[in-house]
Amino acid sequence: MLIVPEREIANLITAADCFTAVERVFASMANKAAYNFPVIREAIGHADALYGFKSGFDRESLALGLKAGGFWPNNVSKGLTNHQSTIFLFDADTGKCRAAVGGNLITALRTAAASAVSIKYLARQEAKVLGMIGAGHQSAFQLRAALQQRQFEKVVAWNFHPEMLSRLEQVANDEGLPFEVLDLERLGAESDVIISITSSFAPLLKASQVRPGTHVACMGTDTKGKQEVEPELVAMATVFTDEIAQAVTIGECQHAVERGITNKEAIIEIGAVISGKHPGRSSADEITLFDGTGIALQDLAVASVAVELALVKGVAIEIDF
Amino acid sequence: MLIVPEREIANLITAADCFTAVERVFASMANKAAYNFPVIREAIGHADALYGFKSGFDRESLALGLKAGGFWPNNVSKGLTNHQSTIFLFDADTGKCRAAVGGNLITALRTAAASAVSIKYLARQEAKVLGMIGAGHQSAFQLRAALQQRQFEKVVAWNFHPEMLSRLEQVANDEGLPFEVLDLERLGAESDVIISITSSFAPLLKASQVRPGTHVACMGTDTKGKQEVEPELVAMATVFTDEIAQAVTIGECQHAVERGITNKEAIIEIGAVISGKHPGRSSADEITLFDGTGIALQDLAVASVAVELALVKGVAIEIDF
Repeated sequence: MLIVPEREIANLITAADCFTAVERVFASMANKAAYNFPVIREAIGHADALYGFKSGFDRESLALGLKAGGFWPNNVSKGLTNHQSTIFLFDADTGKCRAAVGGNLITALRTAAASAVSIKYLARQEAKVLGMIGAGHQSAFQLRAALQQRQFEKVVAWNFHPEMLSRLEQVANDEGLPFEVLDLERLGAESDVIISITSSFAPLLKASQVRPGTHVACMGTDTKGKQEVEPELVAMATVFTDEIAQAVTIGECQHAVERGITNKEAIIEIGAVISGKHPGRSSADEITLFDGTGIALQDLAVASVAVELALVKGVAIEIDF
Repeated sequence: MLIVPEREIANLITAADCFTAVERVFASMANKAAYNFPVIREAIGHADALYGFKSGFDRESLALGLKAGGFWPNNVSKGLTNHQSTIFLFDADTGKCRAAVGGNLITALRTAAASAVSIKYLARQEAKVLGMIGAGHQSAFQLRAALQQRQFEKVVAWNFHPEMLSRLEQVANDEGLPFEVLDLERLGAESDVIISITSSFAPLLKASQVRPGTHVACMGTDTKGKQEVEPELVAMATVFTDEIAQAVTIGECQHAVERGITNKEAIIEIGAVISGKHPGRSSADEITLFDGTGIALQDLAVASVAVELALVKGVAIEIDF
């Protein structure tokens, strides 16, 4: 059994590695070679924690396993991250546990990779302005990964707590790009691509605020009840997602589908675009929306790469298990 | 993170340790302090494997986690056990992975402990003859654990492949008890306690073969479709189980409930007897039947003990994870 501790991940795996791994596994889903098992998520009645598992299998790469962990809201007071997760990979030929991999940074990187993949395949080629909604820990990962996908010339951003926006300003500056704080009305009017990455439970971005041709990646909604944009925006957009089953139950699509203004059958898995089965954006005026719910296969794909790199670099701890 | 390899388990934990841990967590379930999460079980379409997770949480002991693994039918040809499992324990206060524990022997021991617990609480005190149906790898564990619970004077046994019964004869002889191979008719007529531990998909033991006062522990049925006894036997018995939800879906009860001859509401969780909420056996003539389906909480309880003992004995491998 191999152990790849959390502390090693940052030195092992790049955003580009994650992008490639996530892009590949989305395509594998479209080929019906990879699938996610049902998600387990439990409020355990202790420490206010939400605990559970996301699991799946990719018959192409033979990545098999799960991410276990959850949200412990009181961890910060102990000097720990509130989100804690560990990824376990299993040998698909024998069922033996092959590796335990720290899952915290991988979760951040694979989430960022998903919106970046959506930009690669769905945003207009000439997109120039990137709008960010949300400025928490995860937002910097999303921004950094997104900036690799188009020749963006400017970053604009909004956050409920404006003082947190310096985090994104720093990332934009690192990339040599101008940065501006805008209200949502102006953010929508200026942006070619918008990423929302908040923990909102009510719509922030309105349908009327988004102009034709925009690509919107909704990355914050991963639970029943969460919501980042008006359902009318989902309804007017061509909607793509990582996994339809999750999109309509715990993703941004849940609200529009519940209201009956978006049809589940019209939602397209992004893997279909990557693998050439669906053309993606059909016109320069179309609004495309990616509902990124976060799936086990992303975690397994990135963790598998981390294990291979850890072996190459000699930092995997091998245990005779 | 602590690692307790499979090879250490045999030297760490006794059948008595397992008995105590399983008895305690069954009681914790009755106190509504412990519960199992939904079971994930997938035919992954590779190596004919069944893979999945059993998971749960005990708020009394704070045992939180899962057993992951499954059934790889081609493992034997590779010199590996077909059943492969690993137990992962999590810190209920922080969500960090606390331990990875080899789960193969623990699964055998906790399954044996469950039928032993059922005998302690449900068999007549004066039970003298123990009948075994099934003679596979697991049967020796069931027999050994059962023999600790009453002053048994004889072991009788039946198996589809009679040549395998030497396995049980050896265990009986080790305990100084006579052993006899019988057909099921005579086995039922002589036994005070019967344990079935087969992988049968059709009833073996008939209702008419079991005499009043017998305690039957059905331990082999853990999947939809499996079946060890006639549904009529379940219907005429007072039925106890580890977990009702599993009993009626994947346990021996599935068939009698499906036929409408056993009422789900009449099934009693064994924890209620252990914790004094239910009196258990009500008369010397009553047939009691324990439907042991195998639950995550057993695995977590026994693995937690293994970790504590491994720490005391200095054999837990500590990884800075």
